[in-house]
Amino acid sequence: MADVTIVEVGARDGLQNEPEIVSTADKLGLITRMIDAGVRRVEVASFVNPKRVPQMADAEAVIAGLPDRRDVSYIGLCLNKRGVLRAIESREGNKRGVDEAGCVLVASNTFGERNQGQTIDQGIAENREMLRLARENGLVAQVTISAAFGCPFEGYVPPETVVRCVEAMAEAGAEEIALADTIGVGVPAQVTDLFGRVRAAVGDGIRLRAHFHNTRGTGIANAWAAYAAGVNVLDSSLGGLGGCPFAPKAAGNISTEELLFMLDASGVSTGLDLAAAIATNHWFATVMGRTLPSMVAKAGPRPGEYPAANYCV
Amino acid sequence: MADVTIVEVGARDGLQNEPEIVSTADKLGLITRMIDAGVRRVEVASFVNPKRVPQMADAEAVIAGLPDRRDVSYIGLCLNKRGVLRAIESREGNKRGVDEAGCVLVASNTFGERNQGQTIDQGIAENREMLRLARENGLVAQVTISAAFGCPFEGYVPPETVVRCVEAMAEAGAEEIALADTIGVGVPAQVTDLFGRVRAAVGDGIRLRAHFHNTRGTGIANAWAAYAAGVNVLDSSLGGLGGCPFAPKAAGNISTEELLFMLDASGVSTGLDLAAAIATNHWFATVMGRTLPSMVAKAGPRPGEYPAANYCV
Repeated sequence: MADVTIVEVGARDGLQNEPEIVSTADKLGLITRMIDAGVRRVEVASFVNPKRVPQMADAEAVIAGLPDRRDVSYIGLCLNKRGVLRAIESREGNKRGVDEAGCVLVASNTFGERNQGQTIDQGIAENREMLRLARENGLVAQVTISAAFGCPFEGYVPPETVVRCVEAMAEAGAEEIALADTIGVGVPAQVTDLFGRVRAAVGDGIRLRAHFHNTRGTGIANAWAAYAAGVNVLDSSLGGLGGCPFAPKAAGNISTEELLFMLDASGVSTGLDLAAAIATNHWFATVMGRTLPSMVAKAGPRPGEYPAANYCV
Repeated sequence: MADVTIVEVGARDGLQNEPEIVSTADKLGLITRMIDAGVRRVEVASFVNPKRVPQMADAEAVIAGLPDRRDVSYIGLCLNKRGVLRAIESREGNKRGVDEAGCVLVASNTFGERNQGQTIDQGIAENREMLRLARENGLVAQVTISAAFGCPFEGYVPPETVVRCVEAMAEAGAEEIALADTIGVGVPAQVTDLFGRVRAAVGDGIRLRAHFHNTRGTGIANAWAAYAAGVNVLDSSLGGLGGCPFAPKAAGNISTEELLFMLDASGVSTGLDLAAAIATNHWFATVMGRTLPSMVAKAGPRPGEYPAANYCV
């Protein structure tokens, strides 16, 4: 067993804001190469309205093309009951489908209303139904508390609000609960505090996961703080994908290679191979036609491989 | 008193690898604006051979133009005795000059020989003389252990080697000792371990400082680990300057704005104003003719200021 499970979210969160549609084959190439690099949980698509998120219009096609591995758990993101129904449909007949319904509860009334048309309380009610539906149909029922660290409209989110969301989801039978710093505004002290409160609220019986964006440069620091607080499931995207070329203020997820570099160098096992992740980065950069944000893929994983240069201090 | 002292190193470490010479006036503009933003310790120049580092050829001119503030401490970097003599000369007559001789000891034989023509032992002997000279001439005598986390030629540096360097410098009378991750290969667990060893070796009487580069995306995480380990003096450069446009593998110092964002949001006082630092970033980007790496300056310091966009999780 690895010390930390890295959930690769590049094919979903990493791509959803990309204006140029990435082909289904390239999405499957990304997923397959990351499985070959050692990833065992992958967020593969989002069951959203294709008019709102055109990049996810091929969700069912991506899922139909997934490697039929029994040692890999595929996650489909579900923003509402319709999403969970699509996750269930993906498994009907003899289809491989997804293994997990990744539900989403927004911890901010304003953000929730603008994004999903729901207040927090409406979101709690909807997610209760979603988790029940998922569980009754053999899917892993897990949920992410979105905007748990800050909201683009309301500012910092009170920790009490996050704890209330988490308690409601635990009561609703979520098998895993994630805190997501959707807009990348969290800092390590906040991560330590918030996961401490959440763990105290739900006890040891529920698995916690952390989801960070590197919007303000603190994503990797937050990941380390979460690990130090006992969270051993972390989301990341290959290359730090997730920014949007036309919206320079929206930065990507923490990079899988940077997370892996940090954990490797700290003696924390993940089951992933950093060289294979870097090779995947270099391949996917050719797909995207640009260098990806991850710095480890540029600098190389080990100090001895660093080129001589005009260093000083 | 601030909880953490940020030492602004942009005018030295941030610029030294820039191929285009930045004017003395613009360097002074950067230094002055950062003082106006609240910085009280500034690394202003390096006393090196201008043939080796052309960007530092105007060291004496920069120092001659510094604001005559008594509440600010100016640091000149010294790689050898000749450097310390130049630091001393900068104060002769009625000149303001620098306040601190920032000496450098490389914790790797190969790197030391290639960069300064000295083994570790030769470096220890030279730095003993440098610290004595500085002290006898009224300068603050401090030293940075360079390549303390990894060497571009030898790989990871044994912590015992770093502790040996630190002990020698403490014995030689250094008033402050810094550990520098020159090539940006450190991770938080290593930072915690190494500063713990160093503190145990030198006791509480000597001030410790940390100097990180963000080459592999872990710089801000390392800064937080150093702070958590009791280090309350941190180097950073405005905008994360310090990369080299022609050497994409050499990334910059940790960014002053990102460090400040993290400390501000954690309730750790620094005396600096983040909005003023971001304004300086935007001005200096026009000087350099390019966007600087810092992400906070792009995303804005607070979640409420974040623009609405197509978020999801």
